This record gives sequence, structure tokens and C-alpha cells, in this order.
Amino acid sequence: MKPKLAPAEGAVVAAKGFRTAGVFCDIKRLGTGKGSDKGQKRDLALIVSDVPCAVAGLFTTNQICAAPVKVCIPRTAKGRTQAVVINSGNANACTGRQGMKDALAMTRLTEATLGLPPGYALVASTGRIGVTLPMEQVEAGIPACAALLGSTPTHAEHATEAIMTSDTRPKQIAVRFKLGGKTVHLGGMCKGAGMIQPGMSPNGARPASLPAGLHATMLAFITTDAAIEARTLQRALTEAVALSFNRITVDGDMSTNDTVLVLANGQAGNPRISSLRHKDFIAFSTALQHVCLALARMIVRDGEGVHRVVSVRVSGARSIAEADAAARAVGNSALVKTSWHGGDPNWGRIIDALGYSPATVVEDKVDIGYSTPGSKKILWSLRRGQPTRATFDSLCKAVAPDEFDLHIRLNLGKGEAVLHAADLTEAYVDFNKGNVADPTTLGG
Amino acid sequence: MKPKLAPAEGAVVAAKGFRTAGVFCDIKRLGTGKGSDKGQKRDLALIVSDVPCAVAGLFTTNQICAAPVKVCIPRTAKGRTQAVVINSGNANACTGRQGMKDALAMTRLTEATLGLPPGYALVASTGRIGVTLPMEQVEAGIPACAALLGSTPTHAEHATEAIMTSDTRPKQIAVRFKLGGKTVHLGGMCKGAGMIQPGMSPNGARPASLPAGLHATMLAFITTDAAIEARTLQRALTEAVALSFNRITVDGDMSTNDTVLVLANGQAGNPRISSLRHKDFIAFSTALQHVCLALARMIVRDGEGVHRVVSVRVSGARSIAEADAAARAVGNSALVKTSWHGGDPNWGRIIDALGYSPATVVEDKVDIGYSTPGSKKILWSLRRGQPTRATFDSLCKAVAPDEFDLHIRLNLGKGEAVLHAADLTEAYVDFNKGNVADPTTLGG
Repeated sequence: MKPKLAPAEGAVVAAKGFRTAGVFCDIKRLGTGKGSDKGQKRDLALIVSDVPCAVAGLFTTNQICAAPVKVCIPRTAKGRTQAVVINSGNANACTGRQGMKDALAMTRLTEATLGLPPGYALVASTGRIGVTLPMEQVEAGIPACAALLGSTPTHAEHATEAIMTSDTRPKQIAVRFKLGGKTVHLGGMCKGAGMIQPGMSPNGARPASLPAGLHATMLAFITTDAAIEARTLQRALTEAVALSFNRITVDGDMSTNDTVLVLANGQAGNPRISSLRHKDFIAFSTALQHVCLALARMIVRDGEGVHRVVSVRVSGARSIAEADAAARAVGNSALVKTSWHGGDPNWGRIIDALGYSPATVVEDKVDIGYSTPGSKKILWSLRRGQPTRATFDSLCKAVAPDEFDLHIRLNLGKGEAVLHAADLTEAYVDFNKGNVADPTTLGG
Repeated sequence: MKPKLAPAEGAVVAAKGFRTAGVFCDIKRLGTGKGSDKGQKRDLALIVSDVPCAVAGLFTTNQICAAPVKVCIPRTAKGRTQAVVINSGNANACTGRQGMKDALAMTRLTEATLGLPPGYALVASTGRIGVTLPMEQVEAGIPACAALLGSTPTHAEHATEAIMTSDTRPKQIAVRFKLGGKTVHLGGMCKGAGMIQPGMSPNGARPASLPAGLHATMLAFITTDAAIEARTLQRALTEAVALSFNRITVDGDMSTNDTVLVLANGQAGNPRISSLRHKDFIAFSTALQHVCLALARMIVRDGEGVHRVVSVRVSGARSIAEADAAARAVGNSALVKTSWHGGDPNWGRIIDALGYSPATVVEDKVDIGYSTPGSKKILWSLRRGQPTRATFDSLCKAVAPDEFDLHIRLNLGKGEAVLHAADLTEAYVDFNKGNVADPTTLGG
């Protein structure tokens, strides 16, 4: 059932029939003479399929949600699209009626420029909140970008750069695998850095099971040449995001703009995956989960100021929801996160956070331990609420690497959850306090 | 009804019939030759009444709660005590059966040393979690402290120093006022600094209305010579804490040890306040609220690394619980807190946090503004979801002072709440990451 995944080149254009490009159109209005030809970061991207695609998406559950999200939700629900236009430098969030007009204008100009039917373009934005889009720049950028569309890895790199905000490096991946005898490609790009604790749902509605008060802007765009029906694609994506993008936190702030989109154009010619019971559904889903998890972990790894990435693995909770709540209390605790930054194996702060989490925790049942990522060899610092004989030095070594797994067993039930979290550093604070004398340093 | 409060000297010994002292007994086992006579910070205090007192208390609702809290809850419920022993440097939390033995041994030694009946002493601890108490030091400290008991402001200063951990300055207050023709005193001391977002209840049980996942060790000890019945005192304290200590946050971490105790010994000779309907109840409650709020704000002001204190005032929520949830989402958001540190009037981050809070928020109804503390003149940055004409410079000036009020009106109902919150600075991160090469730098 599990597909053999091989690496592929080209990220969002690894799949047949997709083209992309990224340009600098000065969304931040830094002024003239600063174009991408002068080394200025690109800020507008297009992803375009040669033919109409099935589409699936998940969107922020923040009640304050950006205009592009409001435009995408109903369009994605229809299951059909052919292009995505994305800008960085401005989130088009909290921009009222003008914001909705601007988001729609972006899709209309994209459709007109590419000769697509109305409603066949999607839009995503990331950057500062509360400032209306500089439409003159955007309206120059879209046709300029369309003129550069192509399918080489360099095109994908330009698009990936264009969606970055405080990201220090591009984030992309592509794989190929076999479905029904045909070679299928699945590739994607994403951006993150700050305001990262996504909690996304297909329609932006808050599920009752979503933990309260949790969640940055992350955007992810995935393309595939697999043939798959839109509703089935949505189910695969919802499951994949539940195990990846919705399981990360940098700073615990959920953005107004979080968006994940998958476009499937069927150009691989595999037998169309028409339902959850189709023989190729699990293989496709597994590949999608792999791509989503790889992209999600890149977001945490490159989070603002992040030095250490810690996968908090909670098991033995009374329910999955309690396991999730416990992992989020630990992964978002300022004191736990600063101890990770200091390389301090401080289990006192961890058990304190567990104790105030909504999860049921019994002190003399709690186990806390460490391993290298993915290893089964755990060094326990606490067993059944009692410090083990592990030495302080050995525990310090366990939390010294840039990435490690934190294992928490509550020993009360069968609920399990994993949260990919990050330390809290002076660099995060310094970056996000900005400099009011230079408003271009002030984040979203 | 409102009593006229005059300042008084002596903090916990302002009230008649109380004595206190603080000594250094080396709870952190820094070694010999470092006594308080050598300028080392005191680490053990006693508060003693000449006669038995009515007592009321509130305790952490963290499920992982320290041994001294477990000892105090049933003793406080009985409503009668005569002494409190307090140590800093070690929280006696997550110390299992030995921890309970040690906490009880502290009360027994205090009772024996002072000649009190069994069960007449309470105990509180603060400091590192997960290390058993150095009982040799404690057992030397209690009689040494008892030998120094006295009623001068200097005695109170020594006790206040002894309960400090990462606090940079002592926190104390006392007032006097008239009740039934008699002069009554009410005074207290507290400590805070980090792991501060208390959510306390009289029996440590978690009320359903408590926001999930919120809350440092704070300890507060208040004494009064008012005559008041224990159950009535508990009601007055529960109300006062709901408006003070339970309405602060430094880092959003709720401690295992949070404790507030009030001892009332009746030595003022006022007519005993025997119920909520007693004519002097409101006057006493008002004075207690004043003392609790003053102490609570001192904790935020001196929080670890804190530069700015912001009172988040939410009104117009659908309920008080929703107002509280909204205020906590804003007051604990890493991005909002770093913007306060930067002096950045970033309303985008504020509305983002409101949007992911459990409170209902409608974008085009939200007002956000600033005032100097207590002033009614508000500079609005956002009205009904739309940026106002207030200039960036004027908004920067509004958030530049060390203390300001942030006004958030949701305009959906009548729910109101205030949260006294703090910024997040590089100093907080630096302090709490500690230095594993010197384990004495590693916090609780």
C-alpha cells in the first residue's frame, strides 16, 4: 500500500502541466531602483496549470480572517481551479470592503491575463496586517509574472522566494511515485517563520475539537499531476494537514491568513482516484502526508529566531484531544521554550505546564524522556513522577542537539499526539519587537 | 461604605499582635561563609500572631501542586491558624512522599518552636521544582528565625526579602482604616517574578469557568487585626483575588505553588464581621481588594525582564468568561508582547489574537485604543474594525510609557474583564534560559 517515494526536482512544477514564476513588484513600496534585477527579494508569484485542476484547501480558523481566505473558501469548495496568485509583504487582512475588492481584483486580473474562465483563480497573501494592498504594484506584477511562467527548477525557486516573508530560506520539496502503473509527481512550496500555530479547517469554521487559543501565517501550495476527484483530494488533504501543518507551533499565535492548497491536474494519466475506497487512495494519501510533514517541519526549523526544534510526543492521555492539549501547553510554555534554548533538561517546567493544561494529569503517573528524532532509545528523566538516576550531564547531552524528541507518557489512557515545537530565543524577541523608527521592520 | 484608606508602616506587622522575621539558612546550599551577615539574601521567614487567627486562603489550580499547598488546603479550610513558615530557593514541588513529610515537618517544628497546638502552622515554598528540601538547613532556620521575631518595619523587610526569588525588589504594602469606630490595619507582602499567571481557588479545584491553559509562583501573605469570621474572610478573599492576583500574567505559566493567605487576629477590637450582610463587610472587602490589587500589580511590574506593564481592558464581550478569554489571548500572545516591548502600536497582532481566542469576535465591531493608566481619555487606533485617523507617531507615544491601558471593545455584549499583563523582552529569555554550567542559575 505504501508507495515508494523518490525525490524529484522542481517543487510546484515537478508535476506535469504546471508552470510558475516569481517577480518583484514592490508590494512594500520600498521605492524605485530596487527591483529583483537589483537583488531585491521577489514578492509576487503565480502557479498555473495547463488544464483545469481538482482543488482542495484548508484555511485558518481565526475569526479574523483575511480577504484572500474569504475569496478562496467558496472557490475551493467548488473543487475546480487553474491558477493561484500569491503576494508577500502585505496580508490583505483587516482591510474591510476595500480588501475584498482588492483580493477579487487580483483573481480577475490573473484570470484575464491567463485567459481563464471567471472564478478559476485563487489568491493568497502574507505580510503586514491592516494595510490595504498597493494595487498599482500588484496590477503591474501579475502580467509581468505571467510573462515569465515556466517549468524549470529555477522558475520554482523564484516562486518560492516570492512567497517568503521573515523566512531565511526557501522551503520546497517534490517526490515521484507510481500509481496504477503511471509515474505521478507531488511537489510543493511553503512559507512560515512567525505567527505560527496553524489550526486550519476546510471552510475556516472552528471545529469544537480544536484547542482554544492556539496558532503564524503559513502558506503552502502543493501541485500534483495525479488524477483525483476533488472531494477525495479534500479528504486526503484534511487528514494530511491534521498530521502536519496543524501539528506545529513556533510562537503559539494563529494567523489570519493560514492557507494550504493542493491542485491536481490529472496529467499523469493514472486511473482517477474517485473515492476513499479507490485502491490508490492510501498510496496517494501517504505521499501527500510525507510532503506536508516535510514542509511543516521546514517551517518550524526556520521559525523566527528558532535554534532548537523539539517534537513533543504525548501518549497515554485520556483522549487524543487531551494528548493534543497537553502537547500544546508544553510546546507553547514560555518557560519550557526558554529552557530548551538554554539546553536545560528542566522537567519541572514541563510537568508544571502539563499540570495547568486542560488535559488530565496525575503527578505520580507521568514519565518524561528524550531521544534523538525517530529513535526508540529514550533517556528517561522522570518515571512515574520520580526523577530517574539519569545524570544531569547525560540529560543535558540529550537536549543539546538542534533537534530532539521529548516523550511524555501520561499513563492514563490511549490518547496520542505529536506537536513540532520550537525554542524561544532572544533573536525571536529582537526580531519581533522591530524598530518603530523604521516601520518596514514591523511585522504582521 | 467605602473606607478611607491611609498608608501604614510595617507590611505584615502593621496589624496589632503580629510578629515576623527572615533569616538566611542556605536552602540553596551555596555553602558556608555566605550567611545574611555576609550579605547573602535571606531565604526563610515566619509570620506569627500572638493569638489564634481566622484564616482564609486561595491556592493554585495546577493539577501538579506542591506539598506545602496540599498541607495548607485542609488546614485553611478549618479556618484557624496562628503562624506561617515560608522558604524560598526550593518549591518542594514534585517531591513525592518525602516532600509531604518535609512540609509537615516544617509545620511541626514551627508549632513546637512557638509553643502552638498541632495544626496551627501553615507552610509555603517557592523556588526550583523537583528537588527535595535540605531539611538540615530548614531545621536550623526555623528556630533561628523564631528567635528574631519582632514587629518593626525592619522585621517586615527581612521577611519580605526572605520570600523573594527572582524578584528584584521587595513587595509590600499596609493600610489603616476605621471599622465600627476602631482603627484596623491590613498589610501584606508578596513575591512573583516568573511562572506567573495565577488561577487560584479556595481548595485548589479547577472551576469550570477558569480559562484553560493559563497562569508563576506567586506567594502573598496578608495580615489584619480586624475581627472577622473565617468563612466571611474567605468570601472577601475569593472576591478580592478574582479582581487582583487571578487577573495578572507575566509569562502565562501557572505555578505549582501559587498561594494567598490572609490571617485575621481580631486585635483591633472592631465588632466581629460575622457574615456577608454585616454592615462592615463591604468596607473590609474594599480595603482587602485595594491591598491585593496593589500587591498583584507589583508582581507584574517586577516580572522577569519586564519593561512595560499593560492593563488589557476588554469590554462588550458576550460574557465575562469571553472577556477574560479575549484579554488572556492578547496578554499572552508572544507577538503582542514583543510589539509592546518594541513600543509598536501594532493593532494587527492584537486583533489576530482576539480572533483565535475562544471569545466571539466580529471584525467590523472591534475598537482598540490606548490611555494612560486610569484615564478616560482614549486614543483609538481602530474603530469598528477600521483604522482611525490617529497618526502612527501619536499611537507610538501612547504605547511608549512604562505603563499604559489597552482598551478593547468587542461591542457584542456586556462582558468585561481586565488583565494586568507585561511585555516580553530579551532579558526574560536570557534569564530563563539560565546556564547549565551553573545549575544554581536554573529556575523553577
